[in-house]
Amino acid sequence: MPDLDSLLKPRSVAVIGASTQPDKVGGMPIRLLRELGYAGRIHPVHPSASEIQGLRAYPTLAAIGEAVDLAIVAVPALAAESVMAQLAQNGTRAAIFFTSGFAEVGEEGLAMQQVLAASARRHGVALLGPNCLGAMNLRERMFATFSPIPLTGVPPAGDVGLVSQSGAFGAYAFALAREAGLGLSHWVTTGNEAGLQVADVIGWMAQDDDTRVILAYMEGCRDGARLRHALAAARAAGKPVVIAKVGTTEAGARSAQSHTASLAGEDAVYQAVFDEYGVHRAHTLEDFFRLGYTLSRGRRPARWHSPSGLMADAVAPVAIVTVSGGVGIMMADRAEQLGLPMPPMPAAAAQALRASIPFASTANPIDVTGQVVAQPAVLFEAMARVATCGEYGSVVAFLAGGANAPRLWAELQHTIGALHEDRHAAPLLLSGIVDDDKRAWLEAHGCLVFREPAHAIEAVAALARAAALDATAASAPAGAAASLAAFLPTVPDNAGALSEFDAMRLLADAGVPVAPHGLARDADEAVSLARRIGYPVAVKLCSAQVLHKSDVGGVALNLGDEAAVRAAFSAMQAALARAGASLPFEGVLVARMVRGWGELMVGVRRDPVFGLVALAGIGGTAVEIFRQVAFGLAPLSPARARAMLEQSRAAVLFEAHRGNPALPLAQAADLLARVSQVAAALGPRLDTLEINPFIIGADGPVAADAVITWLPAQAPD
Amino acid sequence: MPDLDSLLKPRSVAVIGASTQPDKVGGMPIRLLRELGYAGRIHPVHPSASEIQGLRAYPTLAAIGEAVDLAIVAVPALAAESVMAQLAQNGTRAAIFFTSGFAEVGEEGLAMQQVLAASARRHGVALLGPNCLGAMNLRERMFATFSPIPLTGVPPAGDVGLVSQSGAFGAYAFALAREAGLGLSHWVTTGNEAGLQVADVIGWMAQDDDTRVILAYMEGCRDGARLRHALAAARAAGKPVVIAKVGTTEAGARSAQSHTASLAGEDAVYQAVFDEYGVHRAHTLEDFFRLGYTLSRGRRPARWHSPSGLMADAVAPVAIVTVSGGVGIMMADRAEQLGLPMPPMPAAAAQALRASIPFASTANPIDVTGQVVAQPAVLFEAMARVATCGEYGSVVAFLAGGANAPRLWAELQHTIGALHEDRHAAPLLLSGIVDDDKRAWLEAHGCLVFREPAHAIEAVAALARAAALDATAASAPAGAAASLAAFLPTVPDNAGALSEFDAMRLLADAGVPVAPHGLARDADEAVSLARRIGYPVAVKLCSAQVLHKSDVGGVALNLGDEAAVRAAFSAMQAALARAGASLPFEGVLVARMVRGWGELMVGVRRDPVFGLVALAGIGGTAVEIFRQVAFGLAPLSPARARAMLEQSRAAVLFEAHRGNPALPLAQAADLLARVSQVAAALGPRLDTLEINPFIIGADGPVAADAVITWLPAQAPD
Repeated sequence: MPDLDSLLKPRSVAVIGASTQPDKVGGMPIRLLRELGYAGRIHPVHPSASEIQGLRAYPTLAAIGEAVDLAIVAVPALAAESVMAQLAQNGTRAAIFFTSGFAEVGEEGLAMQQVLAASARRHGVALLGPNCLGAMNLRERMFATFSPIPLTGVPPAGDVGLVSQSGAFGAYAFALAREAGLGLSHWVTTGNEAGLQVADVIGWMAQDDDTRVILAYMEGCRDGARLRHALAAARAAGKPVVIAKVGTTEAGARSAQSHTASLAGEDAVYQAVFDEYGVHRAHTLEDFFRLGYTLSRGRRPARWHSPSGLMADAVAPVAIVTVSGGVGIMMADRAEQLGLPMPPMPAAAAQALRASIPFASTANPIDVTGQVVAQPAVLFEAMARVATCGEYGSVVAFLAGGANAPRLWAELQHTIGALHEDRHAAPLLLSGIVDDDKRAWLEAHGCLVFREPAHAIEAVAALARAAALDATAASAPAGAAASLAAFLPTVPDNAGALSEFDAMRLLADAGVPVAPHGLARDADEAVSLARRIGYPVAVKLCSAQVLHKSDVGGVALNLGDEAAVRAAFSAMQAALARAGASLPFEGVLVARMVRGWGELMVGVRRDPVFGLVALAGIGGTAVEIFRQVAFGLAPLSPARARAMLEQSRAAVLFEAHRGNPALPLAQAADLLARVSQVAAALGPRLDTLEINPFIIGADGPVAADAVITWLPAQAPD
Repeated sequence: MPDLDSLLKPRSVAVIGASTQPDKVGGMPIRLLRELGYAGRIHPVHPSASEIQGLRAYPTLAAIGEAVDLAIVAVPALAAESVMAQLAQNGTRAAIFFTSGFAEVGEEGLAMQQVLAASARRHGVALLGPNCLGAMNLRERMFATFSPIPLTGVPPAGDVGLVSQSGAFGAYAFALAREAGLGLSHWVTTGNEAGLQVADVIGWMAQDDDTRVILAYMEGCRDGARLRHALAAARAAGKPVVIAKVGTTEAGARSAQSHTASLAGEDAVYQAVFDEYGVHRAHTLEDFFRLGYTLSRGRRPARWHSPSGLMADAVAPVAIVTVSGGVGIMMADRAEQLGLPMPPMPAAAAQALRASIPFASTANPIDVTGQVVAQPAVLFEAMARVATCGEYGSVVAFLAGGANAPRLWAELQHTIGALHEDRHAAPLLLSGIVDDDKRAWLEAHGCLVFREPAHAIEAVAALARAAALDATAASAPAGAAASLAAFLPTVPDNAGALSEFDAMRLLADAGVPVAPHGLARDADEAVSLARRIGYPVAVKLCSAQVLHKSDVGGVALNLGDEAAVRAAFSAMQAALARAGASLPFEGVLVARMVRGWGELMVGVRRDPVFGLVALAGIGGTAVEIFRQVAFGLAPLSPARARAMLEQSRAAVLFEAHRGNPALPLAQAADLLARVSQVAAALGPRLDTLEINPFIIGADGPVAADAVITWLPAQAPD
């Protein structure tokens, strides 16, 4: 992980290409640093001027006479390379290149950018940009940008770090943060990412003491390992990461590709990466900031002890207290969508509330009804009771305009103040119309406020998720089981795939249940195999060269007798000839027709950016039509595998229904994890491993098919 | 549709149960009417006081000496009935009952409420409430509520009518409208709905000249026909309706049921009703208001002439102009999710833009890049070009903080002003940070402004939808085809279902393709039928008494020869005996096993609130697991049937894939509409009609099964 201290906490800054005009690209950073109170040394570098904006200017970096920490570079693209040489000579460790005219303008620019990047790497310079809007450290008033936006005001210094690939997005985000009073630690735009990427900034912020929540905007990621490493670091540090990754739809991805040189990639794979590290995903700017506000200022539910002792209660439950039944229902709808449990009020507390308001609903939402107008004390009593009864992880109270009513405010303050001091009380969030000064008081007492009731529920869900992540250690990668090593195949350089027989054998050796099968080289052997296995059987052409067997007539299913097997054997030989394969006939696979009541499709593919990705879903046409396939980074932990079976709805096939018995889902999850481990153990040549169908019957899932393909062998780099 | 003029535009108001204390329930409306400038006559009614809040008070309604238009009633529940008698005697046509203690408190209250409702009906009094917060006419300053909220300010009078079942929701909505400056025409809360329902208010607002957009909050609807009638009236009047219907999830519906006596109903059926009439649905308070703002103030895209002339282009396309590539991608993602077409900029306009900014993207999003900082004129040129090129129905421009930059504002005003005058220019919406005064100017010039870029796209989608509704005449109910009448069965009073044979024959007579089949009373007949139909066949027990045939072993599939058919026949006789049916053995249905590559499930059910509802989806386990079934009000128009096939993804089965040919979707839609017409023609006894599976093969969909069940006959009411 690159050390960005020189970039984001520089003691001295040189501006190369400094302008005497304070509003030009090379003048603005000097103006901002001076006017807004940067305490470090500022050195303009200009070929001829001896003074710029009242500061002594130097003809070259070397003339400054000290190794500056950070160089801001605003020179034409063609001069960039010579600047890099100066930086190296001067021992400058970080540089921000505002300069455009690189990869974003085409092939020629890309080539220049590659030269610049190589040069930065060689000289050990942390390179931000080119074609970026710069960076800021809000606490140190370090404004290394040519955007004039800080001149009209800056957000307070705070604990939210913001990094954006796009400069314009970053500037708008800055303005919105300023308007919302969201406290920022750092603001960084990465532009063309010739050197530093969004991932590097996330990784650095994960270690930075001033940053507690990380907001990142990205269009794509070129280096999956780097991003995973950074997200793992943030997770290990307990710092929530919120990512707005755009280009989620086809149209969006298309424009993302035309907009920059970034790889938009398959959104589901990004989602799998985000799920792996507990990243909070934002789909709008509003979500992005609201999540930042929530995670920075909100209190997470205490680690919650499930009364039932079951892990299924791992999400801390929420109590909804409302002065409006209708709004309560709206909030309950949202809570259910987000999977937040809403158990009813415990009996004692419920009884006490009903003693005050006979028609109050204590089922949760806890509706104190319009009666609260006459008896406001009851509302506060209800809030305090639910927050302290031990049943709930969080409490959301909808007060409508109540907080602003003078006769209620004092009582509300009293209640919130007391709960804030009680470390056993569940965190309280409010929804309603609240004046700014009251809102500030409430926030200072641990109580977030949302105008929109649904947003309060979403905040609870985000905080509960952050708390659950804290509670579970980052799942260690499952790793390839050592026991697999013994029977892994050596892959010939020219191989494109394993034959189905070899693939089935490999899976069986690794402990994956496969349909009883064997390899038959002649018709007699096929018949005797079928007899041993039991009819009906499938007969399939076995060749590492023919991947799509059914396309050439290489698959015969449901064969019920010897004659059918013999006929199929001949047909397979003819099919191989038709396919024009150059290898000799290896034989046919004879396998039992497995019966079941459902089909899974499971597989592992190599993603060009993120490496091995596992997928699972319900097989057959359902996969094609509903596309409800879940993705996860391989190798999978059993917990993640289980989550994928649930997310793709495949878990339903393991429930008892229509006379079929229930099967243990945990066993299926273990199997899916096992398949992903096999794929990982097969090493860097593995391209895809697919089992489709994985038939679910009385004996659990059984692989009825297996495909393993290899990437072309590459000369060592 | 009740006439609510007396309620919402009264020339005189009596307050029965008037209080001398202005802040009591019976005092507040007098205070509000007087202080806030109601111009009509106000008559307090009080048993003893001769003056209340400076107004002459009367001991009874009769003592007033005129027939007042509206009575506000704030007396205890037990006195309500005697008040109703006074109203009748006085000729008062409308009454608002604030009084609680009716249906919301249990059985006894419900009985009292029913008496009150019957009395109001008998006397022709439009009854609002009881247990409601009242009503307001903002233009006439008529504040008939006991909520003190108008004392702290009221929203401007405008063209948005707001009706809420819940008083607390209504009050909060009032406060939010006030804060957002959203202009309201009327504000009505319906409470327990003993008389007037949300539907009645929607229906009246549909005719009201002061209302152009209707916002409604509801927890449930007891009278489906009334709601449909009101929504049809609003649609016919071209007034968009936005509904927040809560209780969409199980948890929400549960609390909706416990909160009021309302029937939460099945959310999918509500959605079908809303789809039928083009209702805009809001799931949060923010959506609710944003849709109100958008539809009240926004300009709908002009009726758009598709360059291709195809109906598929019926949604007016949108152009996205952006100063930030990243935000542009975010907006494109949202537009694609909402089904908004985004064609690229026409060649001439694109060329002109690239002449000014070589690296601008003209693909749409049209990205003018950061270059706009140096050349702002280019941005305005791009906006004007796309708005006037004729390619787009709407234009969204993301300006970040640009509108607030002094040197850009004048130019922006110039551009917006010119486009506003050009009636051929597409409406323009902005996203960015804009000061309040500038925002007001922009809105006055037809230009909505949204801070959140995604919201601007959502606004375009809502306006495009409203425009599309205007363009298509409200689809006339398809009606039962007259030709069906000839062969409809007469339903015996004691019948619970048709036999499958009768159901299949009915469908076949009505022109629905069914599997070749016949009824066999003995084994020989079954064999000869099977031979005529062609093997393989299915043999099924035929009895109107045995609905779930497979549960008793009454179904044998895939029978390949005579022996199998004879064995199945015997098995069916045994199955009937096992089922314990009292009717004699009718025979077995022998039907060809239809082959195909997919299964539909289509049906019609009677919903207790809304009547016949058709459903369609992909059959088999997909229905159970993915629950992607689309609903529509029956009888369906072919267009609606087609939309249902698309919405449920069943349309995919009609596309060419895996060697199966494409089938005309229009034909399938016609068939689905036909099935719904058959169900409607079967009259009020029909409970369900289901075809599952409807097998899709080379000859189009063929019904392989049919179930028709009847409701119990009822004595005429």
